[in-house]
Amino acid sequence: MDKATRGMRQYDLVVIGSGPAGEKAAVHAAYHGYRVAVVEKLSNLGGAGVNTGTLPSKTLKETALYLSGAQERRLYSVERKLSRSPDAADFLFRERYVVKTEREELRMELLKRKVDVYFGLGRFLDPHRIEVGGEQSQVLYGDKILIATGSYPAHPPGIPFNGRIRDSDTILQIDRIPRSLCIVGAGVVGCEYATIFAEMDCKVTLVNSHKDILPFLDREIAGALVDQMRECGIEILAETKIESATVEKRDGKEFVRAHRADGGWIEAEMFLYASGRNGNTTDLDCARAGLKLAGRETLEVDETYRTAVPHIYAAGDVIGFPALGSTSMDQGRVAVTHMFGLHDVERVAKQFPFGIYTIPEVSMIGLTEETARKKGIDYAVGRAFYKDIPRGLIVGAEHGFLKMIVNRRNRMVLGVHIFGTHATELVHYGMELVENEESLGRVLGTVFNFPTLHELYKYAAYEIWTGELDDRAREVAPRESDHQAASDKEHK
Amino acid sequence: MDKATRGMRQYDLVVIGSGPAGEKAAVHAAYHGYRVAVVEKLSNLGGAGVNTGTLPSKTLKETALYLSGAQERRLYSVERKLSRSPDAADFLFRERYVVKTEREELRMELLKRKVDVYFGLGRFLDPHRIEVGGEQSQVLYGDKILIATGSYPAHPPGIPFNGRIRDSDTILQIDRIPRSLCIVGAGVVGCEYATIFAEMDCKVTLVNSHKDILPFLDREIAGALVDQMRECGIEILAETKIESATVEKRDGKEFVRAHRADGGWIEAEMFLYASGRNGNTTDLDCARAGLKLAGRETLEVDETYRTAVPHIYAAGDVIGFPALGSTSMDQGRVAVTHMFGLHDVERVAKQFPFGIYTIPEVSMIGLTEETARKKGIDYAVGRAFYKDIPRGLIVGAEHGFLKMIVNRRNRMVLGVHIFGTHATELVHYGMELVENEESLGRVLGTVFNFPTLHELYKYAAYEIWTGELDDRAREVAPRESDHQAASDKEHK
Repeated sequence: MDKATRGMRQYDLVVIGSGPAGEKAAVHAAYHGYRVAVVEKLSNLGGAGVNTGTLPSKTLKETALYLSGAQERRLYSVERKLSRSPDAADFLFRERYVVKTEREELRMELLKRKVDVYFGLGRFLDPHRIEVGGEQSQVLYGDKILIATGSYPAHPPGIPFNGRIRDSDTILQIDRIPRSLCIVGAGVVGCEYATIFAEMDCKVTLVNSHKDILPFLDREIAGALVDQMRECGIEILAETKIESATVEKRDGKEFVRAHRADGGWIEAEMFLYASGRNGNTTDLDCARAGLKLAGRETLEVDETYRTAVPHIYAAGDVIGFPALGSTSMDQGRVAVTHMFGLHDVERVAKQFPFGIYTIPEVSMIGLTEETARKKGIDYAVGRAFYKDIPRGLIVGAEHGFLKMIVNRRNRMVLGVHIFGTHATELVHYGMELVENEESLGRVLGTVFNFPTLHELYKYAAYEIWTGELDDRAREVAPRESDHQAASDKEHK
Repeated sequence: MDKATRGMRQYDLVVIGSGPAGEKAAVHAAYHGYRVAVVEKLSNLGGAGVNTGTLPSKTLKETALYLSGAQERRLYSVERKLSRSPDAADFLFRERYVVKTEREELRMELLKRKVDVYFGLGRFLDPHRIEVGGEQSQVLYGDKILIATGSYPAHPPGIPFNGRIRDSDTILQIDRIPRSLCIVGAGVVGCEYATIFAEMDCKVTLVNSHKDILPFLDREIAGALVDQMRECGIEILAETKIESATVEKRDGKEFVRAHRADGGWIEAEMFLYASGRNGNTTDLDCARAGLKLAGRETLEVDETYRTAVPHIYAAGDVIGFPALGSTSMDQGRVAVTHMFGLHDVERVAKQFPFGIYTIPEVSMIGLTEETARKKGIDYAVGRAFYKDIPRGLIVGAEHGFLKMIVNRRNRMVLGVHIFGTHATELVHYGMELVENEESLGRVLGTVFNFPTLHELYKYAAYEIWTGELDDRAREVAPRESDHQAASDKEHK
């Protein structure tokens, strides 16, 4: 310990931020016996994962389904009706409970692991010293430092955010459910809230500045989601830019008018801006630590989550893509593994699922048709529809399907894409198929519990198998001809 | 074609029975271009899988959950209430719809595949000729024959089956929901109906002639199910045998009194006997085909589902254990693959999950603690509870856990046991782990969608990993000492 650090609180690791990345990193390091401090600028633990992002929107989705009862409508001979009309407090009731409980869980977990928690804004004094602001300001010394400060909703210029114009954080503080809502930004957050509010009988307009929504999705799946959103009354405006917005009044009622770049306008009772998030780095004084910022105020890291400064790591939303709670947790663990030379969680899985909690859900693993085509792979596609399998019939799933993409030459499963109820759960079996490079035959030879939604995999596999054999019947020897086609391609 | 077969309908394959095994076998053979006939003794297709067993009870489970609303109770600030009290017709409404729709699906599938369907009782005239009874009796010649006649509920002597004393087939024809129900037989069917009727506010007594229920389950899981059943007001009587039953009357009301072997008795408004099933072979005239019956009127087959008569195969409930819809389907396909020397579905997966559709569900794959111990494996156990993971919190799952059994020496996942909502779906990811002999590290290094119930796998894996490392801390080198312990065991 040098002279400058004497008297300061000393830690092996100081983690700034207690969201999914920070919390898991802190627990992981503490478990291995390191002295760990967590600095949290808010008065509650959990970051966006618990407080404003992941858990709240997923809970609101379940609430919306419960309150609307739409999934069960017409399935049974007796209806279940709400005892009264729900208001915003009812809409938010379960979300508040879940968030509060989960915060407490986190607090207990950190306490159990003997992690010191400091509430206050953390900022670098130098590469090792973090000043924690607030009433009882103090300075922490970290041998290693993990920046897991998360992100904040980007606020475009010309938009006066207030009670009627909200971002993805403040949407959780509404005091009534608007009759009309315009959502600007058709990314994951925008699409999720669009379906949640539509389920709550709110007239939703979804404004997309691009042509397509969710470009990383298989186009057929994205198309199915768009169709379903339209069927639920959601209006989707493509290639539409909003330049400014004003709150106006008509017949004594306030509303928002947003002005489009093309001169038109959109009116709604409430606006939600979900147009991307930026890294929470402004208050960090990164320059004092010798760190430079990348685009959208993020930090750049290598594959061990180390920044340009060797003892400083960063994980979670603050490093940008994919900015998922699921990946952030493992990024935090991996960072700890490397900073202390441990050997448990050395890398984040290369294959990880994307889950979108729209109504119905979307989830994917592996290649889309578009990426398979770009890679020049000769692929086959099989689809299985929820309504065609016994379990789908039992739960009355009218919509939804599973799409499986298989390499025609070696029958390897390349990608699985699911649009439908429980998609975010179902995809994990497909993740194992893709990760292990399993063949179609494996799926055909597997016994699934009957009746379950997992049978979708078998139905989709049989569709491919049947289709390929139909080809064989037509072309005598499709395996050879496939091989020929592939070899032709290689010689082009 | 010899003289004796001239004039008869000729088929490459005659399938007797249109349940899960028969239907999939017929479609599989027809798809490969063979001429196939299906003989069905009832006026509806689908056998027990569709009409009396699998689909009905699984649909009734969902109906019971819907009508009781118990899973959502206290989660939200507004209640959803039934618009009126449900009666037996409401209870059976969805089941009738699902069964009817699925029958129609099967009919269309067989039609599409150009499979001829004959309604009538099939019986052997000789090893190749099947007489179909009924109004327009005819004789079919099958080059190959598959017996997929299913099973029927065993009726113990001394029990007068009638409107008050039912079996697992006739329970679907109730005209009112009894206030009290005594279920005799604590196997899968008995346990499933016990929880379904308890959910419908019926006072259930479950009579088990053995000491333990569901002996193939991990004992801890079975214990959790028993605890949960008791919590729901189900009375469980162990080692209790019923010798006879009589319908009696008191205060103008009919009830059933069943007499126990020990002299006591049990009274209930209705009794359900779920005490095993026997193979449907009596009407087949098996002797004429040269076939002998095994225990419980079943047929014995080899691993290709071939009987002692080389061209006659048997699959599904008629061959006994495991008698699951899921395995029966693949048995039918495997039989077809072998009888025609095809190369697609050559064997039924060795690892297949067990799914029990109780409330909540139970599902398992691989070794139980008991089987691991019997095999002398040094194993570690990890548990993750639904209530401790974010998704469990969102859906308000108070009960339920996932238990993972891992080989301590090589960290291989040996078994996964789940007690809780959606267990029958969740187990499939674990099936891949066990089937591929994946290690604990694989689960730790996997990113799951957040929040999903699949995170139970990660939590359970961390529990084992943490526990094992605690051992390491205590014993310096647990891997070595494990090794030592195992080698000690080997030298015993």
